[in-house]
Amino acid sequence: MLELITQNRSFGGTQGVYRHSSTATGTPMEFSIFVPDHAEGEKLPVVFYLSGLTCTQANVTEKGEFRRACSELGLIFVAPDTSPRGDDVPDDAEGAYDFGLGAGFYVDATEPPFDTHYKMRSYIEDEFPALIAEFFPADLSRQSIMGHSMGGHGALTIALRNPDRFKAVSAFAPIVSPMNCPWGEKALSGYIGTDRADWRAYDACALIADGARVPDILVDQGSADTFLESQLDPELLVNICDAKGQPLTFRMQDGYDHSYYFISTFMADHLEWHAVRLG
Amino acid sequence: MLELITQNRSFGGTQGVYRHSSTATGTPMEFSIFVPDHAEGEKLPVVFYLSGLTCTQANVTEKGEFRRACSELGLIFVAPDTSPRGDDVPDDAEGAYDFGLGAGFYVDATEPPFDTHYKMRSYIEDEFPALIAEFFPADLSRQSIMGHSMGGHGALTIALRNPDRFKAVSAFAPIVSPMNCPWGEKALSGYIGTDRADWRAYDACALIADGARVPDILVDQGSADTFLESQLDPELLVNICDAKGQPLTFRMQDGYDHSYYFISTFMADHLEWHAVRLG
Repeated sequence: MLELITQNRSFGGTQGVYRHSSTATGTPMEFSIFVPDHAEGEKLPVVFYLSGLTCTQANVTEKGEFRRACSELGLIFVAPDTSPRGDDVPDDAEGAYDFGLGAGFYVDATEPPFDTHYKMRSYIEDEFPALIAEFFPADLSRQSIMGHSMGGHGALTIALRNPDRFKAVSAFAPIVSPMNCPWGEKALSGYIGTDRADWRAYDACALIADGARVPDILVDQGSADTFLESQLDPELLVNICDAKGQPLTFRMQDGYDHSYYFISTFMADHLEWHAVRLG
Repeated sequence: MLELITQNRSFGGTQGVYRHSSTATGTPMEFSIFVPDHAEGEKLPVVFYLSGLTCTQANVTEKGEFRRACSELGLIFVAPDTSPRGDDVPDDAEGAYDFGLGAGFYVDATEPPFDTHYKMRSYIEDEFPALIAEFFPADLSRQSIMGHSMGGHGALTIALRNPDRFKAVSAFAPIVSPMNCPWGEKALSGYIGTDRADWRAYDACALIADGARVPDILVDQGSADTFLESQLDPELLVNICDAKGQPLTFRMQDGYDHSYYFISTFMADHLEWHAVRLG
């Protein structure tokens, strides 16, 4: 059921990388999980981290600098992959980085040929948490979710669609409105089709406009992010939250870019935010 | 003189990667440097980090988790490469990982064809600190040195040969006696020749046996390190320090291996040790 790939002791806990056969995507899927040392039989709150375009679990696992804080706060930290992978999984026609492999956008695709394997919404919302609870000491009554860029979009939309499931949500440089940026328009038209009404379930700003609410949201954004204006446009989120009364803590971080040098800097802040809300 | 490759804001400081043309090795050399924010004109103490076999500056830069502590403690952190590189730099005859490129062992080679470029001792001891002081706000009256595995060997031997220059020295899983392990015997015979008397300047245990002293040494070693018995054998260091009165804090860390999951866990401890001694 679960194949161990690597296991390393780190920061008073265990960092594992696993592979399993996913029902949702119909492919093998890899993920990483950090479990702090804990008492026999104890279950810990769990933070789901969704990665950005081109990433696998490895980017945050190696560069995210989350283990010290997770160990101190007693948090399990889980990082799934960003798309199905394999020889029979269709990719972008030109092999571009922003669609297909490494770019699942956390949607359930309805457009062929992507509708066979690209079921990242079902994977992350349903199959993956159940798998984590089955094999690890995770308390699913205390879940939270965060992500970066495309994964920030994933975290925000998944939390907004499942307000009772997640105690906290935060994002680093998220795509706040895929309906209004080139990355998102390409992904949603390719995976979901051209009817923009169908896109609204996959757009944080549209979900909030349509009435979805979570208790609060934390977003950090680097001011030197090269995608800030062309793709991310966090003002869209700030404005809709303001208009609709959705609590949002938005922090523009001066001089920081889109990389893990930015994410790692504010990772402990985010985990503390999550820990307070996870109880 | 100094070519900027990348620069990222991180943890309230600047992480840079640079290239320069080295006189010592006769090749371009890359290095990384983290400089915490500081007052105009202020000079900061500097920690040199020497990496292990197969590594470049990138391993510790991406996975070392040193920036938070360096920022809090006001330390510059510099990571040079582990060997000269380039098309005209000779490599191991069979392309093995433990000799030649990525495996300079911090020696000045005397054996052809390696004696042309493999001058990592001169590079680290002389050229590199001068370069850092010329281009960055580094206070060379407050230097310290640390390293991992082959780089732990480098840090220990360089500190023992230059006791007045370094205020602190520490190592993660160091090669404590290259004269007494397969990695070291291959490297020293290949770079220095077969007269073992010439090897003693490149062996921490031999240097201590021959009278070299530093105020104290900190070493962390993982108990699950796969190289522990075959290559590292820290008891050799413990025993010679005990016999010769060289202060040593040696910590066996239960369950930790040879990877950056181990190094990152104890990096902040080491930097605090350095900061106390750097004043």
